[in-house]
Amino acid sequence: MLQSNLFTKTKKEAPKNEVSKNAILLSRAGFIHKEMAGVYSFLPLGWRVMQKIMQVIREEMNVIGGQELFLTSLQIPELWSKTNRWSVVDNWFTTKLKNGADLGLAFTHEEPLTNLMKEHLSSYRDLPFSAYQFQTKFRNEERAKSGIMRTREFIMKDLYSFSKDEKEHQDFYEKAKNAYIKIFKRLGLEDKTYTTFASGGTFSKYSHEFQTLTSAGEDTIYIDRNKKIAVNKEVYTDKVLSDLGLKKSDLEGEKAVEVGNIFSLGTRFSESFDLNYLDEKGEKQLVVMGSYGIGPGRLMGTIVEVLSDEKGIVWPSEVAPFAVHLLCFGDKSSKSYKEAKNLYRQLQERKIEVLFDDREMRAGEKFADSDLIGIPLRVVVSDKTIAEGKVEVKSRGNGGEKLIEEAELFANLEKHK
Amino acid sequence: MLQSNLFTKTKKEAPKNEVSKNAILLSRAGFIHKEMAGVYSFLPLGWRVMQKIMQVIREEMNVIGGQELFLTSLQIPELWSKTNRWSVVDNWFTTKLKNGADLGLAFTHEEPLTNLMKEHLSSYRDLPFSAYQFQTKFRNEERAKSGIMRTREFIMKDLYSFSKDEKEHQDFYEKAKNAYIKIFKRLGLEDKTYTTFASGGTFSKYSHEFQTLTSAGEDTIYIDRNKKIAVNKEVYTDKVLSDLGLKKSDLEGEKAVEVGNIFSLGTRFSESFDLNYLDEKGEKQLVVMGSYGIGPGRLMGTIVEVLSDEKGIVWPSEVAPFAVHLLCFGDKSSKSYKEAKNLYRQLQERKIEVLFDDREMRAGEKFADSDLIGIPLRVVVSDKTIAEGKVEVKSRGNGGEKLIEEAELFANLEKHK
Repeated sequence: MLQSNLFTKTKKEAPKNEVSKNAILLSRAGFIHKEMAGVYSFLPLGWRVMQKIMQVIREEMNVIGGQELFLTSLQIPELWSKTNRWSVVDNWFTTKLKNGADLGLAFTHEEPLTNLMKEHLSSYRDLPFSAYQFQTKFRNEERAKSGIMRTREFIMKDLYSFSKDEKEHQDFYEKAKNAYIKIFKRLGLEDKTYTTFASGGTFSKYSHEFQTLTSAGEDTIYIDRNKKIAVNKEVYTDKVLSDLGLKKSDLEGEKAVEVGNIFSLGTRFSESFDLNYLDEKGEKQLVVMGSYGIGPGRLMGTIVEVLSDEKGIVWPSEVAPFAVHLLCFGDKSSKSYKEAKNLYRQLQERKIEVLFDDREMRAGEKFADSDLIGIPLRVVVSDKTIAEGKVEVKSRGNGGEKLIEEAELFANLEKHK
Repeated sequence: MLQSNLFTKTKKEAPKNEVSKNAILLSRAGFIHKEMAGVYSFLPLGWRVMQKIMQVIREEMNVIGGQELFLTSLQIPELWSKTNRWSVVDNWFTTKLKNGADLGLAFTHEEPLTNLMKEHLSSYRDLPFSAYQFQTKFRNEERAKSGIMRTREFIMKDLYSFSKDEKEHQDFYEKAKNAYIKIFKRLGLEDKTYTTFASGGTFSKYSHEFQTLTSAGEDTIYIDRNKKIAVNKEVYTDKVLSDLGLKKSDLEGEKAVEVGNIFSLGTRFSESFDLNYLDEKGEKQLVVMGSYGIGPGRLMGTIVEVLSDEKGIVWPSEVAPFAVHLLCFGDKSSKSYKEAKNLYRQLQERKIEVLFDDREMRAGEKFADSDLIGIPLRVVVSDKTIAEGKVEVKSRGNGGEKLIEEAELFANLEKHK
């Protein structure tokens, strides 16, 4: 894409009232726009990143057999009264039909999915299975000051599993846990993300959270660096530690952000909705469920919090808006522009995603924009590089800079596609 | 995909209270689930179709230079008061923050996009450009009885264009109109879809609607079959007809559904938000805008209304949930199952999307399900076809049935990929 066509502009100043690093950098770089506290639009660069994060998640959900669907935001109170979550949960956004009937905007989807499964599930042969979606959730948060890491409206990937019994559920639960670990690895958050024991609610001893270490996090966790596991403050007791075989002396308290969570739900929902099946003996059994959440927007914010530097954002390659940021200097008649345009075409032919900064602007400004936007590889074409028959490449991540031939550039990029 | 894994089941009976053909067939075939009147969830088969419809639209929007983004549902009244649409429009769903502040759920996005463009647009060099999204819209409809063709919550593709002047706007408007015509062609609706003159509002004489002929439509249009254009009843006057060079005697009244519309907005929104740019002479000018809507869900419903037959749905190949419905009979130890499974693997290796009905069930039921679900090509492996060293293929559209060799099947499918 030509940068002169990209409608967003970078800004030198952070927007007023933004205090979180992720929102400041993403707004300055033109990835997001704040509509109100806790409500952000994704502009083209930001939406490219979001789509890539969602695609990584989608691929890993498909691997474990998840079937994608799309449930609704508008919800009727009747369904949620069955589990007592209509009156008890206090972060509903509510609205009304013209006839005065109350509706809610979904903050999760256990109730409607459990309810609709009654029409499709009857026999043990129908189990196990799992379904997921990327769908906008609404949560009426009291305060929202963490940029895109805690918002009132956000896309969530929520997966729900349905199993015959506890054992079948545990098998799937382990698969889902491993899928999550793969997702964080692909998103460049592996080193800082800990599988964390947290409160399990009524139906299971623990749930698992995935917590990424960052001072911007709202949670406190106690990590065991060697075992690469952690315990959330809410269950950090002597009893739990001994239960998990952890020693207080091996643990360090850290601030972290919850980037995903997985829950065993037992029969809590299937009981409320009488979601059952006939087993091999023809006897009625309740379905055992699990739910597995992850927020692509929060992941995007976390990546910015964890991987950015003083100059701007540093995107991991799997989710970068483009693979290459191509820069040249001089006007449209200059040799460097013509060479760069030629290289731009060749990269496009090779299906390499490239943002070509074709604007007429000072080199310093272009370099600053490039660092702010954070595309993994910067490629510069200048009179100097042309004289040498090469291009200058620089990694946004490690800063390594060198002159290489175009053929080598293509080979490296193909390798990482 | 194995049909035994697909969690949805077909139903013999239509759901109660459904009167529209599209909702009846889509519910029976397991594509959608009704949450309440005018609010439908998309189950895996339905979501596959929706994603394909969206991908067709996305490709055509990218061709004309649209940049994809994602705006928010939650809206503050201040923005919409500037155009007087907060108090005047009566199909808002409204909600409140915990501090009591009113919010609305977006039914369109001219106001927030025009507002945010003030931060990114300053010079004639920034124009023209266009941006689009696939985003859930909310409309508090009084009644909702047309299945997924008129709903209270629906994904809409809305594109917005920003131009320097009326001429530049008209150039883009024509491009967008042609992109729409290509979309309807790719979706198999070309023959029945008419570019229709409709009321233009304050800032232009006419807008264009795209109307597909169907008795399920809520609109009446007057069509000229030869010229392939139409006039909406709302502007069907002698003056308009003479203006458009149409003769009353050439026109026939028909029921139709509006599957898309494109609007010239003039400076209505840029004036309200003071969205301007500096022209070549350094003088302030207002931006000229357009908006272009299309609803993937309504398109899906329209396809079902227009192309289905008494046995079920008939999907056009570009948007079918799968390209091939593979059927075999007999249990897992039978020859036909083993042959079919082998063919299933080969189709998957060739990246052909195939639904394999591996269930143990009577042939009649499998055929009925296959007709109901509507995948374009049915392939049957039976003892008879194996004896001949062939497979039986049948087109869901024209019913043509024949025995061909697997190599020929692969070649045909590759050709249409």
